[in-house]
Amino acid sequence: MLTLSGGDIAAMDSRYRAAFINGLSGLRPAQLIGTVGADGEHNLAIFNSVCHVGAHPPLLGIISRPNSVSRHTLENITATGCYTINHVTEAFFKAAHQTSARYDGSEFDAVGLTAIKGSLSAPYVAESPLSIGLQHKQTIDLDINGTHFVIGEVVEVRVQEDAIAEDGAIDLHRIGSISVGGLDHYYRVSSIARMSYAKPDKPLERLDSGD
Amino acid sequence: MLTLSGGDIAAMDSRYRAAFINGLSGLRPAQLIGTVGADGEHNLAIFNSVCHVGAHPPLLGIISRPNSVSRHTLENITATGCYTINHVTEAFFKAAHQTSARYDGSEFDAVGLTAIKGSLSAPYVAESPLSIGLQHKQTIDLDINGTHFVIGEVVEVRVQEDAIAEDGAIDLHRIGSISVGGLDHYYRVSSIARMSYAKPDKPLERLDSGD
Repeated sequence: MLTLSGGDIAAMDSRYRAAFINGLSGLRPAQLIGTVGADGEHNLAIFNSVCHVGAHPPLLGIISRPNSVSRHTLENITATGCYTINHVTEAFFKAAHQTSARYDGSEFDAVGLTAIKGSLSAPYVAESPLSIGLQHKQTIDLDINGTHFVIGEVVEVRVQEDAIAEDGAIDLHRIGSISVGGLDHYYRVSSIARMSYAKPDKPLERLDSGD
Repeated sequence: MLTLSGGDIAAMDSRYRAAFINGLSGLRPAQLIGTVGADGEHNLAIFNSVCHVGAHPPLLGIISRPNSVSRHTLENITATGCYTINHVTEAFFKAAHQTSARYDGSEFDAVGLTAIKGSLSAPYVAESPLSIGLQHKQTIDLDINGTHFVIGEVVEVRVQEDAIAEDGAIDLHRIGSISVGGLDHYYRVSSIARMSYAKPDKPLERLDSGD
């Protein structure tokens, strides 16, 4: 094992440090956020910082850097009050990654993905097996480093029908949802097991069939 | 595709809804958080809500529910100002999951994991290939649902030596870091590709060797 101190990290070259630190938080989700501007133009941007905030009310968060390519996403969310989160699969991960380039017009056209309309003005990605429509609730500015924590409430879900287990759980492997490590490493997943609720004096059981 | 409205979600049975909504945010990291109480007793708890907040300064966040099993973790972080985040692998994921049971004493002893000491008072998990020591910086209470967003600065990293690429990126597959979907579904990962920085008029390239 290698041990690095805070001083070792501070002394890293800034690009090396960005790559290193971005890996520490572990496996992240890969999603495209769809928005529409006040001028009606669609925007689509890849994010790896969507997080669960709560189930009731159903809330999701996004952590967004200041002055990044994702700035249009934040501006549009503030202007229109809505956005969509669309899971990325291996079938279109290159197009999804390409949305991080600085385009003038709609990224849907630029990278070859299909915008479709739900009940919100923000567009969904037709190629995605799981898309979530959100209403913006709150943006918390993190003074510690100038990032923004954006919280929205789930108001619509489009999901592949066979993805939901009897108890409500979504099988992310079945829909082909992928993961990102650090800034640019994409991973596919395979199931290890679903585990039962843990109690002190009871052995764990598998909830899935084990196949 | 199945389309669910906000009303459909609100009408779900509460356990079904918890399982469903916890899947929407996509693949999450699986980590154990190690802390020590003011009385010197170790605590270890599994979390799937660690997120990247920034690289410079190096900051990680945790989203924690109120009044949950993880309450001891929050109390200890506040009391001692430090904690560790330890990546979980398939070799000890059952022990990691079992930490979510309500134990009176140290979860290390209860589930059979090994506490080791670094430069902080909070314990590391010896079995983990990537452990991060953090100093608590800030806790933001999210009034919207009573959860807490805990931000810490990375002050120490213990990592398997062969995990770091030339450019600083950490290969999460090589160290065996695993992912969680929803509340209880564990996944292993395999590499799809590392992709180059995207530019509008340049084709993407693979940064990895493609094996």
